[in-house]
Amino acid sequence: MWRDLAPIGRDADTRGYRRYAWTETDRDCRAWFQAQAESRGLAYEIDRNGNQWAWLGAATYKDVAAGDAVVTGSHLDSVPDGGAFDGPLGVVSSFAALDELRRRGAEFTRPLAITNFGDEEGARFGLACAGSRLAAGQLTVEAAHRLRDADGITLPQAMEAAGYDPDAIGPDPERLARIGAFVELHVEQGRALDLSGDRVGIASAIWPHGRWRFDFHGEANHAGTTRLVDRRDPMLTYAETVLAARREAELAGAVATFGKIAVEPNAVNAIPSLVRGWLDSRAPDQATLDTVTAGIERAAREYADRHGVDLSVVRESFTPVIEFEHALRDELNKILGGAVPVLGTGAGHDAGILSGSIPTAMLFVRNPTGVSHSPAEFAAEDDCVAGVLALADVLEGLACR
Amino acid sequence: MWRDLAPIGRDADTRGYRRYAWTETDRDCRAWFQAQAESRGLAYEIDRNGNQWAWLGAATYKDVAAGDAVVTGSHLDSVPDGGAFDGPLGVVSSFAALDELRRRGAEFTRPLAITNFGDEEGARFGLACAGSRLAAGQLTVEAAHRLRDADGITLPQAMEAAGYDPDAIGPDPERLARIGAFVELHVEQGRALDLSGDRVGIASAIWPHGRWRFDFHGEANHAGTTRLVDRRDPMLTYAETVLAARREAELAGAVATFGKIAVEPNAVNAIPSLVRGWLDSRAPDQATLDTVTAGIERAAREYADRHGVDLSVVRESFTPVIEFEHALRDELNKILGGAVPVLGTGAGHDAGILSGSIPTAMLFVRNPTGVSHSPAEFAAEDDCVAGVLALADVLEGLACR
Repeated sequence: MWRDLAPIGRDADTRGYRRYAWTETDRDCRAWFQAQAESRGLAYEIDRNGNQWAWLGAATYKDVAAGDAVVTGSHLDSVPDGGAFDGPLGVVSSFAALDELRRRGAEFTRPLAITNFGDEEGARFGLACAGSRLAAGQLTVEAAHRLRDADGITLPQAMEAAGYDPDAIGPDPERLARIGAFVELHVEQGRALDLSGDRVGIASAIWPHGRWRFDFHGEANHAGTTRLVDRRDPMLTYAETVLAARREAELAGAVATFGKIAVEPNAVNAIPSLVRGWLDSRAPDQATLDTVTAGIERAAREYADRHGVDLSVVRESFTPVIEFEHALRDELNKILGGAVPVLGTGAGHDAGILSGSIPTAMLFVRNPTGVSHSPAEFAAEDDCVAGVLALADVLEGLACR
Repeated sequence: MWRDLAPIGRDADTRGYRRYAWTETDRDCRAWFQAQAESRGLAYEIDRNGNQWAWLGAATYKDVAAGDAVVTGSHLDSVPDGGAFDGPLGVVSSFAALDELRRRGAEFTRPLAITNFGDEEGARFGLACAGSRLAAGQLTVEAAHRLRDADGITLPQAMEAAGYDPDAIGPDPERLARIGAFVELHVEQGRALDLSGDRVGIASAIWPHGRWRFDFHGEANHAGTTRLVDRRDPMLTYAETVLAARREAELAGAVATFGKIAVEPNAVNAIPSLVRGWLDSRAPDQATLDTVTAGIERAAREYADRHGVDLSVVRESFTPVIEFEHALRDELNKILGGAVPVLGTGAGHDAGILSGSIPTAMLFVRNPTGVSHSPAEFAAEDDCVAGVLALADVLEGLACR
């Protein structure tokens, strides 16, 4: 499976993946999914929001009784210059786990589906988990129709160009009501399993996290002739805020990152008029996150005052803490023999979105470096096999009793 | 004159100018220049490097005896979202000064030319004063042919698209040999005249200045799941370096600016793999500039080591101190009555480039705020009129004896 999927959307220079929603690369990933489904005799289906489904024991979700389906899957899109595993490992492992169960001669007593959720990373339109958010009613049709990519192309325009109907999108409670359990396997994006020496772990919770846009408005001026005392240079305020974010996060045991910036006019010989920086911050609990972000904003305002810079801060997105369902988590732990570590994560996932509507759980596969969202992201083959076997055990335990 | 020129290349949102070399906006500016020349009965000429010339008392530079011509002018292109005066004030004042001399009935004893030098700001291809550098042999044809804009379009491609022959470019010593004096009038880009209460000043020297590119290479990683201790975040190193640059410049009485940045992958939820920042630094003398830039680089390397970040520093351009010719400067001062302040400047100009080949001088017009390279750049009408009269006096003194 990896052989056909690996070349799609890979940049020749960076060796990173650029699989963005509703592009030709996305279409190729989707074709790969459909081919995998059909080669296994699964019933292929695409939902109103463009998420892909491959059914065993049902021709469509309509054939399934309420709460009966066991579903597993992940996503195939990527961040800019992302790695090979974040997303695809979950989809590939789902098909591989089905192959393993067929090899074992397992008899399914419940319908099984494998899924590929669209636009999980939000690399193109800036909103993560768009496919699962729409299905779960956590993203309104109106808000989705207003999304634009960096070239000004709206989500409806992009969907139409890819051959999908943007007017069909919206909440999908009928479909979600059929699902009794959703299990997403994912490469770990930290080093917890590496540090504990385990191949596979179970998710406890997703940290609360949000994105804030800091707009530092100064005054554009000539970099060669403007005296330092006459400057209102927003780059200085931005720099001080970047360092404050690191300090506040360190103090609180949280994470805070300025990874994206836009500068105007962005010329070598001009003091900027505007520096726009995006803060991503996450913490184990809400109170800690509030402390960190309030501390960063307070520091930024002090620096801005000192430099004659105007600051506006906008929270662009926010996701509260997500606890995965305890009953399903305990069941996974029992199926896997009780010796599997349970860990929290700072990353958002479709499973986190869906956990508001249906019972969900996650399996993590060891990441020896912790590196993710990078071409250097890696998981060892033995660990990936252990992940497939664990997922097969879980699906057998849930769907084959 | 201003009425026709003012709307060209002005952005409706920012009110700033975006007049970049070899674009349609540039073509419109050039058409304006040609129309101004022809409406005054001047002989219009374009040189091999695309600089425009309007001759009085000669049909072409070939008619002029060595060292006989008096030339005045400036440029019409702009930085991104630049102001109305930087460049155009010198060209408009040149035509206005000619009108004033004709009103006075001045009799020219030497040929006069008004010029518009191409691509002074270097906004598109990253190299300032390309037109005058080529003419003076300070930019080789090979290096010019390698210049690329942000879209990857080469200078030859851009020139061809604008209807010019890129194979014609190169040094123009025959033309420069005809020029006995070049005087460029320019809006001041600092507040020295405002602080001294003068409408017009004469340039003494252009500070040595350079541009350095700092490439901070870290490790791309997930912003939500990577522990702070596991990060190699180049944005932190960049931020510390920005603040170090300000400190070093303050200590030395110089200027240092980080106004341009490029980040990879530049995603909200990814620690950057690369932060590329451009330093512009200038100082009254070479030793001071060396002290400042060495101090910034030393600090940056310390920070980089601490964060596990790799740093490379490349000097992309450098211009040593330029002293304008003392004899011509003294002559201007005498013509203007001896009461005109003489001041240095941190900004580069075509006059500075040409000063290596021919006698050059500059007149500055008061800038009440010192703001430049910004839509807010301003000069009062009375001061602009004083500039035109001073330029007319100078041209009369040089060309009408």
